[in-house]
Amino acid sequence: MSAVPVLEKIRPVFEGDLKKVDKLISDLTFSSIPVIPQISMHVIASGGKRLRPILTLLSSKLCNYNGKNHIMLAACVEFIHTATLLHDDVVDNSELRRGSKTANQLWGNELSILVGDFLLSRAFQLMVDVGSLDVLKILSDTSAIISEGQVMEIANQKNIEMEEETYREIIATKTAQLFAASCNIGAVIAGKDKKTAQALFDYGQHLGMAFQIVDDVLDYSAKQEQLGKTIGEDFREGKITLPVILAYRASDNEEKSFWKRSLAEGIQHRDDLKTALEIMAKYNILDRSMQEAGAYVEKGKDALSIFPDSAEKQALIEIIEFSLNRPY
Amino acid sequence: MSAVPVLEKIRPVFEGDLKKVDKLISDLTFSSIPVIPQISMHVIASGGKRLRPILTLLSSKLCNYNGKNHIMLAACVEFIHTATLLHDDVVDNSELRRGSKTANQLWGNELSILVGDFLLSRAFQLMVDVGSLDVLKILSDTSAIISEGQVMEIANQKNIEMEEETYREIIATKTAQLFAASCNIGAVIAGKDKKTAQALFDYGQHLGMAFQIVDDVLDYSAKQEQLGKTIGEDFREGKITLPVILAYRASDNEEKSFWKRSLAEGIQHRDDLKTALEIMAKYNILDRSMQEAGAYVEKGKDALSIFPDSAEKQALIEIIEFSLNRPY
Repeated sequence: MSAVPVLEKIRPVFEGDLKKVDKLISDLTFSSIPVIPQISMHVIASGGKRLRPILTLLSSKLCNYNGKNHIMLAACVEFIHTATLLHDDVVDNSELRRGSKTANQLWGNELSILVGDFLLSRAFQLMVDVGSLDVLKILSDTSAIISEGQVMEIANQKNIEMEEETYREIIATKTAQLFAASCNIGAVIAGKDKKTAQALFDYGQHLGMAFQIVDDVLDYSAKQEQLGKTIGEDFREGKITLPVILAYRASDNEEKSFWKRSLAEGIQHRDDLKTALEIMAKYNILDRSMQEAGAYVEKGKDALSIFPDSAEKQALIEIIEFSLNRPY
Repeated sequence: MSAVPVLEKIRPVFEGDLKKVDKLISDLTFSSIPVIPQISMHVIASGGKRLRPILTLLSSKLCNYNGKNHIMLAACVEFIHTATLLHDDVVDNSELRRGSKTANQLWGNELSILVGDFLLSRAFQLMVDVGSLDVLKILSDTSAIISEGQVMEIANQKNIEMEEETYREIIATKTAQLFAASCNIGAVIAGKDKKTAQALFDYGQHLGMAFQIVDDVLDYSAKQEQLGKTIGEDFREGKITLPVILAYRASDNEEKSFWKRSLAEGIQHRDDLKTALEIMAKYNILDRSMQEAGAYVEKGKDALSIFPDSAEKQALIEIIEFSLNRPY
């Protein structure tokens, strides 16, 4: 999510805390084996805008938390995310992430796997330092659920007949669960009641769903291509995402054969991505996908309605609205 | 460790509990995604003799623990171990483990990595269910230390000048730490004092050191070859283990050149393993390595001296003695 504009506007709300999070992350990747901080910081630096830790910071402040554990937990969710990225890039055999070479390209698969394990362990060490069994339960459950979602995604690669419901389950687990947990733990450390914690969980879950759907749309977006970004990665890997599911369902028999050959059978020719984009344009698939993302954005904003107005609430609203407003 | 004879003899001491552990392990690998229990159970079934969970069971009973959490923690250390095995086999690109095809051969690297992540998360979920922050601290620290040890090992591959001290640090972290923690947590859940917990930690640590040294010796053992087992895996991978360190130090200049070419430069010819074995025989390297393992066995037995005699203490002594008595 190239969330620079909106994040810059709302940055003053969390800036001081986020600097502390970044310092803690940097300190905690230390190891007597130099390649561990090297790989960790490479991935963390190229990993984006710290969206998940920002969610933890904003959620805890929204719940009037005034201790110090939100800094540690924000670092913790970033470590879980980073561990996932390291293993993801090995799984997908990726070469680039946000324009930088991936760790597996620079240091090899072996070290990427092991440093991912190290960072996940660090995340649990941080949780233990915080000492809340409730938070430990939320995040250990989350960690298991993320792995299950990733396995489900691989098990459904090339499954062109996949139901939209299965797609939603995959993105709910592999992506949205960590967004939800990042928000949820803010309420938990603030000692808020279940209803409040659930509202923040729901907000994060809906944000994560919108975020992933938009990501999947951008992979087929001509405007992205005009912006100089690579598109078609999912298509080449045979990943079945919402645009493909909607396009396949709308397609006539000849078009269905195209999807079966190129995605289910994995036999791809040079102009296949172009054909895929044409079929999607014909049935207005990207707009329809974005409408589904938009529905999650509305639900996410609704979930926040129990909170009185505050700078933190406004920031959370702007984040979820921005998730839709990337050029596609 | 093909520990059948000794484990059979002492089996009655822990048999009832171990059956409960196996049942729990099988229950907890359940997931709605069928490939997760399939891969998990494949690795757990081919992973050996449940040495680490047996250590947790025996240690807790040695400390007169009479609750039920030792079953969950025994399953937990086996999950940590299994996650490590899954990632190890990807890292080493292994094809066989104890005569069975490895998970990465059967299901691919992607699923091996992700199911490893899943099992590590399950381990933390189990710890959270037990609810002891002390145990969570020990095992989250252990998990980070194991990853660091594995990274250190890779960083020192082909480093023929490696000090014996570095080797000891690698095997202390990648292998012995989990043995130590498996014993240590038995004392912790029983509420024993620090001295008792430390004694069991030390026993496990020394057992782990002996265990890994013997493993590294067996990889060069002619008797193993006569028994039909593959030897020379470490040699082919350029892993610098104790037999190589001792052999290199004893070697004359011509022999040193051989080690440099075959291991440091990785240029290997057909008869190189034979030459390596001949140099080792010339300087009596395997016996000398076994003597170092033997010293750990004595230290491990010493650590148990604070405990009065019991069936559990006797079983721990027989396990550590047996670690030496594999044919090499």
